[in-house]
Amino acid sequence: MKTAILSVGTEILFGQIVNTNTTYLSQELQNLGYDVMYHYTVGDNPHRLKEIIGHIFQECDIILTTGGLGPTQDDLTKEMVCEAMNDVLVENKDELAKIELYFKQTGRTMPPNNIKQAYLPSRAAVLENDNGTAPGFILEDNGKTIICMPGPPNEMKRMFERKVRPILEERSDASLYYRIVRTTGIGESQLETDLLDLIDGQTDPTLATYAKDGEALVRIASKRKTKEEAVAAVDAMLEKVKARIGQYIYSCDDSPLTDVVANKLLTHNISISCAESCTGGLFAAALTEYPGISAVFDRGLVTYSNRAKVDELGVSEETLLRFGAVSHETASEMAAGLAQKTGSDICVSVTGIAGPDGGTEEKPVGLVYIGISYKVGGIYRTETTELSTKRPDRDKNRKRSLLAMFDCVNRAIDKMI
Amino acid sequence: MKTAILSVGTEILFGQIVNTNTTYLSQELQNLGYDVMYHYTVGDNPHRLKEIIGHIFQECDIILTTGGLGPTQDDLTKEMVCEAMNDVLVENKDELAKIELYFKQTGRTMPPNNIKQAYLPSRAAVLENDNGTAPGFILEDNGKTIICMPGPPNEMKRMFERKVRPILEERSDASLYYRIVRTTGIGESQLETDLLDLIDGQTDPTLATYAKDGEALVRIASKRKTKEEAVAAVDAMLEKVKARIGQYIYSCDDSPLTDVVANKLLTHNISISCAESCTGGLFAAALTEYPGISAVFDRGLVTYSNRAKVDELGVSEETLLRFGAVSHETASEMAAGLAQKTGSDICVSVTGIAGPDGGTEEKPVGLVYIGISYKVGGIYRTETTELSTKRPDRDKNRKRSLLAMFDCVNRAIDKMI
Repeated sequence: MKTAILSVGTEILFGQIVNTNTTYLSQELQNLGYDVMYHYTVGDNPHRLKEIIGHIFQECDIILTTGGLGPTQDDLTKEMVCEAMNDVLVENKDELAKIELYFKQTGRTMPPNNIKQAYLPSRAAVLENDNGTAPGFILEDNGKTIICMPGPPNEMKRMFERKVRPILEERSDASLYYRIVRTTGIGESQLETDLLDLIDGQTDPTLATYAKDGEALVRIASKRKTKEEAVAAVDAMLEKVKARIGQYIYSCDDSPLTDVVANKLLTHNISISCAESCTGGLFAAALTEYPGISAVFDRGLVTYSNRAKVDELGVSEETLLRFGAVSHETASEMAAGLAQKTGSDICVSVTGIAGPDGGTEEKPVGLVYIGISYKVGGIYRTETTELSTKRPDRDKNRKRSLLAMFDCVNRAIDKMI
Repeated sequence: MKTAILSVGTEILFGQIVNTNTTYLSQELQNLGYDVMYHYTVGDNPHRLKEIIGHIFQECDIILTTGGLGPTQDDLTKEMVCEAMNDVLVENKDELAKIELYFKQTGRTMPPNNIKQAYLPSRAAVLENDNGTAPGFILEDNGKTIICMPGPPNEMKRMFERKVRPILEERSDASLYYRIVRTTGIGESQLETDLLDLIDGQTDPTLATYAKDGEALVRIASKRKTKEEAVAAVDAMLEKVKARIGQYIYSCDDSPLTDVVANKLLTHNISISCAESCTGGLFAAALTEYPGISAVFDRGLVTYSNRAKVDELGVSEETLLRFGAVSHETASEMAAGLAQKTGSDICVSVTGIAGPDGGTEEKPVGLVYIGISYKVGGIYRTETTELSTKRPDRDKNRKRSLLAMFDCVNRAIDKMI
């Protein structure tokens, strides 16, 4: 069924809030097998609100709205929905009693303008609000359906989960299932080239590649009569994708690389420490986002100055002089020195030139070395990797380096387990 | 001028990404004095894309689009803009050369489909992309203007800032000027109370308070005929605001606290090191975002385990046993130990329970101690601060702690200079 999401609120048009409601509803509708054709946002303006509802219904069957159900004068969604759907607002005694009770329970006096929230379209089915005072509703007219929910995300989500989703599930004539396949070491263009015949032949399942934060992803989606059929179709296609680009794939369920690595470390009880220069603590910060990681993460050293590299990691002054701080040799000594100091099963290091300045012809901005010492059979192996982005973007260089560190750790774990 | 923002991309309709581009552009357009009437999102569908452009131009004068300029087959924005604006795509030799150079510089072979990105509407003014391969453009037809930019936020923002904003500034018939005043140590509610009569009496300049990432901010804005008039009105109001809440203000130009601190450290050549537990490297990572900070940042230690706190910082086993890792005493010894080890002018430490688990009745999740040792007249002073959020949200607790660390450092610097 063709669906659109309409957000109502001047604060969204002003850019004062990020429209996360629409993202949430889009995901939910997709997963329920509904086609989301459009997102619209309009301010608290009666004329434009009414006009846009009419316009959307020219093509779509269902509109989900959020916002504009509040008690103030500029909350006009209900009024305009009535005009567009040939209905009138009437007082709903049950809802009025609930709103009065809500204020009583929270120990406040109900301001008179909250009475407005108990007025609902006469033919509407009420959607109770468990998290606030504004009820939502579903109204149908002439084969078209509008579902109106409040704007505050916690109220909207609760209402959607408890009242709206069951109704939409029942009405859906299809089930959509998808997997996001995540990769490292390959760009989006190359990924598309490798999968082009599968993408071009797409009817169902469909394949799409896209780029996100320096990674190339593949989305495999199928829409079938039942969930089982959709899952089977996606999984069969996933096998074909793996046969083509398997060596680049690190997760098939949209898990980020940090989670994949943290999870493996915890599962196999592999301890880890890190020594960072150009990433300045990003690796440690990303790893420690994961709850419970303290069981395996011993310590991180951000050895920004040369002196810190010598003091903390035992990098030799001679190595720094002869090869420079940004070199295979320094990265290797950083990792090995950290291993000697901590005894962690994996010690990963990074040193590079993040930019935007500080590069030379020989060692340009974006040149990065990653070192890793990891225990196999009780003995440390130490390896280094060179990375070169040749870009002056400090932020991107740091994030690329971070991703490459996690990639090195992930590949090391696979050799250890 | 009536403006609309049109986002193009099936991944947005699928809810795979949050549409932050639209939020950013809405804020920018508001600030430039443009009225944003609508937000629209449509998928990579030629028919609907063309239809919606025509529909928007019935009411609006300017459309800003993001997305659909990529090299793949489903990127169709340019084609449909040409159809809607009566133009044709032609190869742009300059842009083709740039794209070829971009691939050469990054050491990759250009896939043939990237040639598509060098095709632009024949009458368009090109907007160069400093962060990627897809150029944007401005095209006018019959009094209507469309401005097309790429979808990746870092490419879009750079293009908007450098190429689009100056053009829109020149065309705007009003001048809006604003300042964002940033504070620490005061909540939004209290801030509003302190400024209530200034906020209520608002016509121009207007005052608004809002909360963002744990900080309370004040926006002072004025829309006048000339920029000079708007600046004068805002600055006069800023003085009144300072008289009320001056002690909480740390920047009047929306500079984040990290930048304020990094800038002061560099200006006054104050060296710094940090020892982090619960923030896990966030402080070091945030500080090293600042280009050139290596001149003053010596090192960071992420002493996650107790053993690391003892080994690296000389925290005594007895302190850990008697007071626990999360205590005034441990925070103090971490900072003092780091000072002894590094001799940095400022050594800041943090230890706490980020959650979601790991709390006790005595030491609940969200309890955090910050230690700071800083040199005044060649002698270290050591101070500690307790912070308590009482929330199970790991991410929020880490970010609150980070902000409080920067606040401590900022206040220490003010005593040192």
